[in-house]
Amino acid sequence: MENKEYIYLKNLLEEHLLDFLPEVDHKSITLYESMCYSLSAGGKRIRPVLLLAACDFCGYDIKQALPYACAMEYIQTYSLIHDDLPAMDNDDLRRGMPSNHKVYGDAMAILAGDGLLTSAFEAMNKDMLLYFDDPDKLICRVKASYEISKGAGCRGMVAGQASDIENENKQCSKEMIDYIHLNKTAALIISAIMSGAYLSGADDEKRRDLSIYAECVGLAYQIVDDILDICGDQDELGKKVGVDAKQNKSTYPAIYGLEESRRRATELLENALNIMAPYYDQAEVFTAVAEYLLKQIK
Amino acid sequence: MENKEYIYLKNLLEEHLLDFLPEVDHKSITLYESMCYSLSAGGKRIRPVLLLAACDFCGYDIKQALPYACAMEYIQTYSLIHDDLPAMDNDDLRRGMPSNHKVYGDAMAILAGDGLLTSAFEAMNKDMLLYFDDPDKLICRVKASYEISKGAGCRGMVAGQASDIENENKQCSKEMIDYIHLNKTAALIISAIMSGAYLSGADDEKRRDLSIYAECVGLAYQIVDDILDICGDQDELGKKVGVDAKQNKSTYPAIYGLEESRRRATELLENALNIMAPYYDQAEVFTAVAEYLLKQIK
Repeated sequence: MENKEYIYLKNLLEEHLLDFLPEVDHKSITLYESMCYSLSAGGKRIRPVLLLAACDFCGYDIKQALPYACAMEYIQTYSLIHDDLPAMDNDDLRRGMPSNHKVYGDAMAILAGDGLLTSAFEAMNKDMLLYFDDPDKLICRVKASYEISKGAGCRGMVAGQASDIENENKQCSKEMIDYIHLNKTAALIISAIMSGAYLSGADDEKRRDLSIYAECVGLAYQIVDDILDICGDQDELGKKVGVDAKQNKSTYPAIYGLEESRRRATELLENALNIMAPYYDQAEVFTAVAEYLLKQIK
Repeated sequence: MENKEYIYLKNLLEEHLLDFLPEVDHKSITLYESMCYSLSAGGKRIRPVLLLAACDFCGYDIKQALPYACAMEYIQTYSLIHDDLPAMDNDDLRRGMPSNHKVYGDAMAILAGDGLLTSAFEAMNKDMLLYFDDPDKLICRVKASYEISKGAGCRGMVAGQASDIENENKQCSKEMIDYIHLNKTAALIISAIMSGAYLSGADDEKRRDLSIYAECVGLAYQIVDDILDICGDQDELGKKVGVDAKQNKSTYPAIYGLEESRRRATELLENALNIMAPYYDQAEVFTAVAEYLLKQIK
């Protein structure tokens, strides 16, 4: 992603990424190190960047949204740590580096994930404590945190992961693959953008447009990922391809075919671009993300 | 625990225990079932009961505290599911029934734990939404949720679990065993009681007394557990004994000796009883819990 504003938000996020972890005692240094190891492993940081971009789009001070953006990345990182475990996808590599459990062992990796997930809510709750004399801002924060909990939990990401695992080695229905995609990937992307809107106290119109954009990009994101696992270039992507087929995962192309997958992703991303077009430069990051995804499947 | 008020609070909790889980789609029925399986497996429910007892002690309507009491039990249950995994303590049985991963597999057990932890914060956040027109009560709720996140996270339970695992097969220092006990077990018990105090908007005096009681009982609880693992009766306890020694766990008796462990637990529990003595019947549940623990090591 080469957009300057995207890079600015990503850098800001990375600069503050460890600031909202609780102060961990030196006796728990291994736990802390294992959490930081995975947090610092890079990646596109697309969810927290979209959260910050939504705040900026709504005219809100992005610095005040940093605890929520970092919480979002703690949640994303915990899900990758647990996902890589031998009991789950059994991935030894993540972003070209050994997975958390390969460095710290399975037990510490489980706890690092649990610690990051709890830290996300601890960080958001701690931030709320600062707004006791400003009930309006406090309410915006509670709404944002609730939105994130929904996207991360049992009617969001965890539900998607569970269905994904249950449907390995199965011929699953179109309805089921849509459900898996919506929950495994789209839910957290949607809640990143919408929590930014809630934090900012966005008006109804902007919130509606953000919600349409979020759903389109959230759904397209996993379809593009599935397509790249078939057609992508290993070196360019920085990760192995062909993994889904090897694990007998239910993917979009496996159920709908490659051409229909491309068509559907393109349609979703064009919808996303259309909804943001009237905002011109104000929606620069949103446009850049949709165009980046479109380019990858061209 | 035969105290009538304790049983009343426990029954109330169990009656509502599933009420604050998110509405899970039928496509995620296995995830939901695996969460409910462990939630419904019984146990003393000591943490949520103490939370409710703290509310009652402070003259607060316990029904309004149910989302927080249930969240507390979701967190306790998730920690047991993850703790039983082969990568952690590798326990096949929990309360006389097969552990979650023995029924649903390791992957689903990891996700059931993740789902319960997220549901705890989702339930508390959702409850906060009901108090937007009452900022004082909203603030009490944010404080309660923050207290729970601290007790559950990286300067609480997760930190204790990590240190516990790191110190298996090691001769650990007294300082370290105190740290492990304080975090692995006491932290969540303390945050249960103190979140009840925050929910109730307790005055300084009651909050101070509750905090002394909570720390004493929280610390004693794990020492008693360690002692029973050596001297307890398997049938009476409903769980295997001698497990700590077999797993080379660092226990209080292993470091301090059995007699000193008994003396320390007795001292802590007598302190707990003393602090509650001036409240007579008002502190009935707190007294019953401390006396129950005392009786177990007599």
